[in-house]
Amino acid sequence: MVELVRGLWEAMERRDWDAVERLLHPEFRCWWPQTGERFDRPGYLRVNRHYPGDWHIRVLRVDAAGDEVVSEVEVAVDGRLDRAVSFFRARDERLVDLREYWPEPSPVPEWRRGWSLPGA
Amino acid sequence: MVELVRGLWEAMERRDWDAVERLLHPEFRCWWPQTGERFDRPGYLRVNRHYPGDWHIRVLRVDAAGDEVVSEVEVAVDGRLDRAVSFFRARDERLVDLREYWPEPSPVPEWRRGWSLPGA
Repeated sequence: MVELVRGLWEAMERRDWDAVERLLHPEFRCWWPQTGERFDRPGYLRVNRHYPGDWHIRVLRVDAAGDEVVSEVEVAVDGRLDRAVSFFRARDERLVDLREYWPEPSPVPEWRRGWSLPGA
Repeated sequence: MVELVRGLWEAMERRDWDAVERLLHPEFRCWWPQTGERFDRPGYLRVNRHYPGDWHIRVLRVDAAGDEVVSEVEVAVDGRLDRAVSFFRARDERLVDLREYWPEPSPVPEWRRGWSLPGA
């Protein structure tokens, strides 16, 4: 399953939407907990094809984790560096389930300013 | 290492700071990529002891992932439900490294409004 996930990120980076579709099970579901959005296979393809900006993906790690595979990727888009943490499941040698987080940069809250290590 | 991580979340929920400290290696480092903050063991204890609100932790999953352990927890705080995704490493049977994401709720961007599955 690790290879399926690596293949997905590579196909996304190539904008090879036929390959992306082939890696996904017909009953594929993507869930983005932060917005509450859920996408089926056509919806997931649509969102990624239309995602704004000239984005480029760098895979930081892909590892089996229980009955899932977890990946962390860095996405460079318009001078910004985003990260995604993705949990995949597979069925019949295709990816069938994706739960994905996009943690955004945020300021240090006032109450703990100065508590982190210097240089951070 | 999975048991160390479960123990950490349980000790945090009990506010048992001595137990938290014992589970952490003296060279422990925590990194929060979203704010850029890094904490050593005393700093991590300080931040968690002073974290505002009456927070309660529910562990959703803990799994080995390569040379790390990944956990997802739900944190109920003041009527809000946050999630944390945490990647731990251990050394000498204590937790020595933590990279932790706190993905925040966000609105659905205008360009893809209506593209997700109904009911989502």
